Amino acid sequence: MARKRLTDAAAAGMLADSALIAHGRGEAFDYLLGEATCDAARNAIRETAAILLSAEKCVISVNGNTVALAGTQLIACAAVLNCPIEVNIYYRTPERMEALLSALNNQRLEATELYPELATEIGLVPILGANPDGRIPNLEGPRANCHSDGILSANAILVPLEDGDRCEALIAMGKNVCVIDLNPLSRTARTASVTIVDELTRCVPILLDDLKHDSVSQDVGWDNDLNLQEVISVMLRVLD
Amino acid sequence: MARKRLTDAAAAGMLADSALIAHGRGEAFDYLLGEATCDAARNAIRETAAILLSAEKCVISVNGNTVALAGTQLIACAAVLNCPIEVNIYYRTPERMEALLSALNNQRLEATELYPELATEIGLVPILGANPDGRIPNLEGPRANCHSDGILSANAILVPLEDGDRCEALIAMGKNVCVIDLNPLSRTARTASVTIVDELTRCVPILLDDLKHDSVSQDVGWDNDLNLQEVISVMLRVLD
Repeated sequence: MARKRLTDAAAAGMLADSALIAHGRGEAFDYLLGEATCDAARNAIRETAAILLSAEKCVISVNGNTVALAGTQLIACAAVLNCPIEVNIYYRTPERMEALLSALNNQRLEATELYPELATEIGLVPILGANPDGRIPNLEGPRANCHSDGILSANAILVPLEDGDRCEALIAMGKNVCVIDLNPLSRTARTASVTIVDELTRCVPILLDDLKHDSVSQDVGWDNDLNLQEVISVMLRVLD
Repeated sequence: MARKRLTDAAAAGMLADSALIAHGRGEAFDYLLGEATCDAARNAIRETAAILLSAEKCVISVNGNTVALAGTQLIACAAVLNCPIEVNIYYRTPERMEALLSALNNQRLEATELYPELATEIGLVPILGANPDGRIPNLEGPRANCHSDGILSANAILVPLEDGDRCEALIAMGKNVCVIDLNPLSRTARTASVTIVDELTRCVPILLDDLKHDSVSQDVGWDNDLNLQEVISVMLRVLD
């Protein structure tokens, strides 16, 4: 299912060449997780929901794989949070940006049908990325381009499938950076404020549910390294 | 480098949609190996060389990823072994077969330049796959099609990047099946006679070297499960 969505997205010009390879790397780590959301990931999802709900300003940053796999559900998350979705891609071309923005606009309609109770808020979610007017400091290339009313000014950011450099640059800006990454050893996973080590299409609906219920409270003593260690223990059990 | 070769091969129509994803899965496991040939893999390469050298008839079976990544080096292996290369792919279309056979013919020229000492033998390596006249028993679909003077009659077969069903079917035919697979837990890895858990472009040159030196002798007590356990220990150390 996820593979079909991605190969369709590749055919639609939404993905860079390396996107399918990156997805495959994730599949291997998911295999080590027994293709299930582990307790540690569940806790990281809860913490992420708490951070996003309590942030003065937040944003959801998406790339090609994220849009292809979970765009619709992330628009619903943005609707609950009353925050923008911002497209930010490493290999930026006008064609890819257009393909992604158009996919997100279709997904907005899909989201309205899937979550009728959120229809009004879904209609209001700003979809940014077309005309970036700011830059993330200390980061080279087009992936540093961002919107001043999106990534640049947000206190908290949810970035599924982030790259290590950008994660470090966002952390250096003092933001609360919540990432979704299946490799618990990656630089992104080790740098982020909160790392959800889980498969995207599996964890985003859980996150949406947490956001809707708004009953989660931020863990003042969140220890991301400890959480990653717990995930790695699960993987060790699969290998052992 | 490997990624570039694969994305070029995808553009040339040599690969199925799922090929890049499969490569990514391999990358993740290679990451757990520290991107190095471990001692257990070194032993499996030696055992594979011994099996191929001592087999009455052997064959090297290749798919799209294998051709893209190591076609040239495998033609050199076939030259030393005086055996055919046979293209066998899961998603068989005339266009993909043609693209692969044409790539192999270019690689034959490349191999002649890289290994001038093998030039005569390289020129004689049969490249099979275009006109299969046999079938692997108990296996459905086009991947069962094979050549009677290739896979069908070989006593030993080297299959980099095999799928689980086909590996089981080849073993059921009584063949010595040597595979190259980065996932030590895969059905292929656990079913094969000998499993080299290593990255293709890293292990094939070592295999070629072993074949050329012809000084390896088959381990009568080869325990493939034990070898896989040793590989898994290396991965556990990386995660731990």
